[in-house]
Amino acid sequence: MGDDIASICMVQVKRDIYRGIVDCAGRGLVHGAKWLAELNQGIDMGAVKQPTVASGADINSASAVGPLSDLDRCPPLVGVAGNEADAYYLAKSLYDCREYSRSAYFTQQCTSPVPQFLHLYATYMAKEKRRLDHMTDSSNLQQPSTSSNDFNELVHDLRALHTQRKLDGYGLYLYGVVLKRVDLPEAAVRVLSESVRAVPTLWSSWTELAPLINDRERLARLQLPDHWMKHIFTAHCMLELFQSDEGLKMFEALQAVGFTRSTYITSQMATAYHNKRSKCEL
Amino acid sequence: MGDDIASICMVQVKRDIYRGIVDCAGRGLVHGAKWLAELNQGIDMGAVKQPTVASGADINSASAVGPLSDLDRCPPLVGVAGNEADAYYLAKSLYDCREYSRSAYFTQQCTSPVPQFLHLYATYMAKEKRRLDHMTDSSNLQQPSTSSNDFNELVHDLRALHTQRKLDGYGLYLYGVVLKRVDLPEAAVRVLSESVRAVPTLWSSWTELAPLINDRERLARLQLPDHWMKHIFTAHCMLELFQSDEGLKMFEALQAVGFTRSTYITSQMATAYHNKRSKCEL
Repeated sequence: MGDDIASICMVQVKRDIYRGIVDCAGRGLVHGAKWLAELNQGIDMGAVKQPTVASGADINSASAVGPLSDLDRCPPLVGVAGNEADAYYLAKSLYDCREYSRSAYFTQQCTSPVPQFLHLYATYMAKEKRRLDHMTDSSNLQQPSTSSNDFNELVHDLRALHTQRKLDGYGLYLYGVVLKRVDLPEAAVRVLSESVRAVPTLWSSWTELAPLINDRERLARLQLPDHWMKHIFTAHCMLELFQSDEGLKMFEALQAVGFTRSTYITSQMATAYHNKRSKCEL
Repeated sequence: MGDDIASICMVQVKRDIYRGIVDCAGRGLVHGAKWLAELNQGIDMGAVKQPTVASGADINSASAVGPLSDLDRCPPLVGVAGNEADAYYLAKSLYDCREYSRSAYFTQQCTSPVPQFLHLYATYMAKEKRRLDHMTDSSNLQQPSTSSNDFNELVHDLRALHTQRKLDGYGLYLYGVVLKRVDLPEAAVRVLSESVRAVPTLWSSWTELAPLINDRERLARLQLPDHWMKHIFTAHCMLELFQSDEGLKMFEALQAVGFTRSTYITSQMATAYHNKRSKCEL
């Protein structure tokens, strides 16, 4: 048994693990993916004497095993540097298991866009989880006044990254969320507008922005990207500002162009009709 | 504004949405991914008159936009048929938001491996969630006797798929879990062994199998794959069977070959030393 173990090919092990993580995560098996990612993190490839032929059963081929290259990480991860892939896999699988503080810990040195964002976001989620755990009354979840101290450090870090132009559209979204938390709505509007210009499909940014728009003039002054998402956002804002007829007209145009069976648009239109009816009855 | 909406290019919209879903999901922004996937699901491409040039701002290029092909779904999804990608994206993002019943609904017609597994697993998770919600006492979470009725239908479906040889290693894992739930441990051992032979890296299967092994003879009789995971499992079982010295020897060999800093192995070894010490003191 000891000899069997000594002949394990660690290059093949890493390949098996990468494939296993992707396959488990794609199927929602978050704990299976986490176990593999933790095992992967604990492998010391520097200390390994690499045999040239795999000892374990290879699902795909029985050919000789060369040294591990970035190509073996299947599928290639967009926005993750090759040398940060291991940390990212571990942090993401911990995040999926709701272990936010541990997730943030493993990505603290990362500089490529996706792991860097995951570090900041997991840090935020850990603070938010702690805040909710420490609350005495679960009925005032939205009360931000007592919590602003928790987020000051994160605001500081995000401001520094913003000044150095190191935040992408996703980082800007998080910066906007945290600025709202510490009660700086004007700065949040600027940062969230910047975020949707960088990543127009990020609906999370648009929904954070919408409640900060109090009138039509404010809406008109926003610097929004020339993108199809702008139309959905504008229609959304029209409803929030009780301009039901205009909102309805826009949603109907969106349905006509192809967004035909969208449950979001259907429910927004239902809200508009409800608002119109309530107004009539007043 | 209505003209602006009428000129939206829906091919570009689909491309933007696919990219947005992958980018959001990779960063843990599960609600952003869900919103995009629901919007995507509601698009009726059959009803669309496709313009040849994109109207929205394209992040990558300003070139002409051709018809949407499978290649535009970035990155390609292993184990997901092209025509099931939309349903899979929606079901996976709902699953990530813990909306299991809705997730199962959208994949019920799928036949390719990953969406098919997700359908079965989300169905199981929905039943499990309902069971926990309906329990009067949260202290007996493991009590299976009253719950077997909930899982009979799922057992029936999985048995049919198994007979037709339509379950891959992941499906076999779920079948094994459900067989344990309805108190059929012998069948579970057979099915879980089949699962680890098909997908040796699926730790979830190994951990379901381990508690069913009551003695060394049973362990020796198991038909296990010739794979490095077998050694980790055997060492794990040795500890469960209080064969601490043998377990320790195997874990030490695993550390020597390259699994050097694995937290799992370190904690297993700590357990072994603890068990040895408790035995001495008895």
